[in-house]
Amino acid sequence: MLLHLLAVGDVVAQGGLDCLHRHLRRLKKEHDVHFTVVNGENAAGLGLLPQHAEELFDAGADVITLGNHTWGKRQIADYLEDNPYILRPANFAPNLPGRGFGLYEGPQGLRLGVLNLMGRFQLDANLDSPFRRADEILAGEGAQADLLFVDFHAEATSEKGAMAWYLDGRVQAVWGTHTHVPTADAQILPQGTGFITDLGMTGPARSILGVKPENSVARFLGQLPRRYEAADGPNRLGAVLFTIDTQTKRCCQVTRTDLTD
Amino acid sequence: MLLHLLAVGDVVAQGGLDCLHRHLRRLKKEHDVHFTVVNGENAAGLGLLPQHAEELFDAGADVITLGNHTWGKRQIADYLEDNPYILRPANFAPNLPGRGFGLYEGPQGLRLGVLNLMGRFQLDANLDSPFRRADEILAGEGAQADLLFVDFHAEATSEKGAMAWYLDGRVQAVWGTHTHVPTADAQILPQGTGFITDLGMTGPARSILGVKPENSVARFLGQLPRRYEAADGPNRLGAVLFTIDTQTKRCCQVTRTDLTD
Amino acid sequence: MLLHLLAVGDVVAQGGLDCLHRHLRRLKKEHDVHFTVVNGENAAGLGLLPQHAEELFDAGADVITLGNHTWGKRQIADYLEDNPYILRPANFAPNLPGRGFGLYEGPQGLRLGVLNLMGRFQLDANLDSPFRRADEILAGEGAQADLLFVDFHAEATSEKGAMAWYLDGRVQAVWGTHTHVPTADAQILPQGTGFITDLGMTGPARSILGVKPENSVARFLGQLPRRYEAADGPNRLGAVLFTIDTQTKRCCQVTRTDLTD
Amino acid sequence: MLLHLLAVGDVVAQGGLDCLHRHLRRLKKEHDVHFTVVNGENAAGLGLLPQHAEELFDAGADVITLGNHTWGKRQIADYLEDNPYILRPANFAPNLPGRGFGLYEGPQGLRLGVLNLMGRFQLDANLDSPFRRADEILAGEGAQADLLFVDFHAEATSEKGAMAWYLDGRVQAVWGTHTHVPTADAQILPQGTGFITDLGMTGPARSILGVKPENSVARFLGQLPRRYEAADGPNRLGAVLFTIDTQTKRCCQVTRTDLTD
Ligand SMILES: [Fe+2]
Ligand SMILES: [Fe+2]
Ligand SMILES: [Fe+2]
Ligand SMILES: [Fe+2]
Ligand SMILES: [Fe+2]
Ligand SMILES: [Fe+2]
Ligand SMILES: [Fe+2]
Ligand SMILES: [Fe+2]
Repeated sequence: MLLHLLAVGDVVAQGGLDCLHRHLRRLKKEHDVHFTVVNGENAAGLGLLPQHAEELFDAGADVITLGNHTWGKRQIADYLEDNPYILRPANFAPNLPGRGFGLYEGPQGLRLGVLNLMGRFQLDANLDSPFRRADEILAGEGAQADLLFVDFHAEATSEKGAMAWYLDGRVQAVWGTHTHVPTADAQILPQGTGFITDLGMTGPARSILGVKPENSVARFLGQLPRRYEAADGPNRLGAVLFTIDTQTKRCCQVTRTDLTD
Repeated sequence: MLLHLLAVGDVVAQGGLDCLHRHLRRLKKEHDVHFTVVNGENAAGLGLLPQHAEELFDAGADVITLGNHTWGKRQIADYLEDNPYILRPANFAPNLPGRGFGLYEGPQGLRLGVLNLMGRFQLDANLDSPFRRADEILAGEGAQADLLFVDFHAEATSEKGAMAWYLDGRVQAVWGTHTHVPTADAQILPQGTGFITDLGMTGPARSILGVKPENSVARFLGQLPRRYEAADGPNRLGAVLFTIDTQTKRCCQVTRTDLTD
Repeated sequence: MLLHLLAVGDVVAQGGLDCLHRHLRRLKKEHDVHFTVVNGENAAGLGLLPQHAEELFDAGADVITLGNHTWGKRQIADYLEDNPYILRPANFAPNLPGRGFGLYEGPQGLRLGVLNLMGRFQLDANLDSPFRRADEILAGEGAQADLLFVDFHAEATSEKGAMAWYLDGRVQAVWGTHTHVPTADAQILPQGTGFITDLGMTGPARSILGVKPENSVARFLGQLPRRYEAADGPNRLGAVLFTIDTQTKRCCQVTRTDLTD
Repeated sequence: MLLHLLAVGDVVAQGGLDCLHRHLRRLKKEHDVHFTVVNGENAAGLGLLPQHAEELFDAGADVITLGNHTWGKRQIADYLEDNPYILRPANFAPNLPGRGFGLYEGPQGLRLGVLNLMGRFQLDANLDSPFRRADEILAGEGAQADLLFVDFHAEATSEKGAMAWYLDGRVQAVWGTHTHVPTADAQILPQGTGFITDLGMTGPARSILGVKPENSVARFLGQLPRRYEAADGPNRLGAVLFTIDTQTKRCCQVTRTDLTD
């Protein structure tokens, strides 16, 4: 069969959550989506609370992934322990709350593995190697998965590309998150892995990465620091559809399916 | 009239130069392009030599812009002084060779101003503010231009967005270069400036930012450093077309026009 | 005459403030100090409030300098406008509250100029060049000073050294702050400027830069982020004495005068 | 017995090598030194060749440690494999040439373990955790050592302090290298580990970290990049003496023993 996986980029603030509610069900129906992974690290701006996670699931997410803002709201820690459908980067220190890999039930009894990893370059030097951590998980829990999908939350385009090529042929899809800007480089690597550098975000369209333009500009002008403030106005949803042939275990199509309110 | 401006992303090594030669003339004809700006900072891998600049002009570039690899080949310094059709970032130190802004003749006697700027965040802290430098140039030489175009060579999506919003309504087009990954966020800002975060590169398609995949992966695995080596195989051309209404001085369309061999 | 200038490193939290109260008067008397400059950016941990500034003056500071934590407590903004004896980095954006240079009365009617600058490398790329800003101030307000002293708040030892050599012969003393670790490189440069890379801090001796050791270690182990928490126990005072010959305008001695409770 | 360990900071270029030759033997005799560890990562400017390593041993080094410039001269790789008296950071990728820990014979049959580690913060994000690597080595090969010494080659004062506190009571001495500026914070931590943040360098005294002042200044002024060039003039030797009680396995004294030509 052809499995349709939808990956949705960082949902930003209430605007992003509402946008997801308005559009995700329809988008899933339209593309006959079997499984949906949503990055939720900005649902509360910086981080997310359990209530935001619930909103993401209500809107249609099967699994939530996170990133560098995982601990922006510390109250999420217990929720990460209790709920197996939310992941934080697997290359955090070994004893941190939550998990970075999950096995989920897909269509036709397929076991779907989702892995959340985070880059280190220009982002966080105090992490374990996302490359070696990927190796460990693929050789361990990941071995039980029929298909494997990776959200690599990272800053540098080079590190993201390196991860995709490193995992080429070992997983079915690798997408990047974190920069909040959608990329136009959807591609299928030589060994069959579908890849795109960044999904982009789901949130205020008239903004700089979700933030009020004047606040972001002020920072680069060296003005007094301002509080994080989400922009208002219409929202956009950043999403990418991966079509995977479950026989050959190759990705055969990667398509942007962005929407604007 | 509707002016068609084509902006082409970082041309990487001989593969990128050849790709440009093969496709640029046709692409310009097809879209009725009036003016073409090409980023050439990687024509020699890291930097470019006068001969590479000549190849870029031969292929159809009207103006060449550069970035953080400007001085990768020091022999370019005199050429930058002598040739007004090649720009390096305008926010380099005041006494460096070359210029960062140029006024060029467009269709119907229109004076076209091209500005090359470079970001500081996670790239180079020893530069002047690209924001204040833009202000100075727009108030000075730039005031003679009928239309203004900006290549903002920068790393962070936030700094790139901030520049576009900062210049919204004061220039007709802002595009980002440097990450070598094309973005899918072509947009027209409220005051009429066309913007896209990154053009992407022009070079080896089966590569990580133009570099051989195994070399780039090795770096992130912490392996011994390797020399810069361009990948081989087919090439892709990363380009964006800005359509500008010369009456209203607003950009009315921003479209990716990427090609692959 | 020989003028004795005392420079005191970043005062950290209440422990540092109390330590300064206990020791500064005596230290000044012992070394016959004519003028005292104290870095206060950490008096409230990250930033300082007007009341902390008052405590620093009460303890014996003639002038307070700041750094990257200037705006940690936003309430300081008005105080910076009103009180000419507190400086923040002069290479902040031009319109920010406060000033970065001050002229003060010294012994025998000498006009003492104090300049606070901040480095950009690995610290804050959105600042003006501290080098060019120094040039401007020395050519402007600074020209009225008989003697000039510079607190260069910066991270990298290379940028600090570069500033000292750049200003050699144009100012009498340059000291670094920010790393919270005292350096043992007190020196007099060829043209007579006294220089030391870092004063070190004034605060908890049993700490990592003033912070509780377990909190700082946890960060590098990739543990959950913790709130800023000052360490307790005895305190140390990091200070350097510059002896300046007011005839030749050369620094003739640079000596550490650290104390521990 | 009281064991005297001498640690010498990054030897820079021929000037530093010559300085070491002139002074090290005498310094060792004067302080009755039993064991000498010298950081050699800059013996050839950026990196070192086998001949430089031989010069360092000839001058009196028992063990050479390295840092981020280890691979500056690739020809050192085989030498690192063959010679057990030269170490490179132990938290490099597992398969790289050379080793990061060695067991050496000390006075009275004492087995001395030397560990070379490298920091990640603002230096190199593609390394394994130096903290966890230290744990592994102390639990493995390191368990055979009677006394343990650590050269932590790192940029940030915070990461260096964190390592020292992390290892407090488990090793006898931790010193930092890399910033090329000697620190004045020699201390004994609560559980008996001797610590200093940076040894400083061994090389040209009239320089910025060993580099010609005008070259280093030029970089921060944003001038054209210049080749690495060692400064000339007199040299200084940056060294710290750790006195260790071999009964209690506590460090009882940490003293700077710097020299200038
Ligand atoms: Fe993120
Ligand atoms: Fe995000
Ligand atoms: Fe670039
Ligand atoms: Fe480039
Ligand atoms: Fe600071
Ligand atoms: Fe500080
Ligand atoms: Fe180093
Ligand atoms: Fe070094």
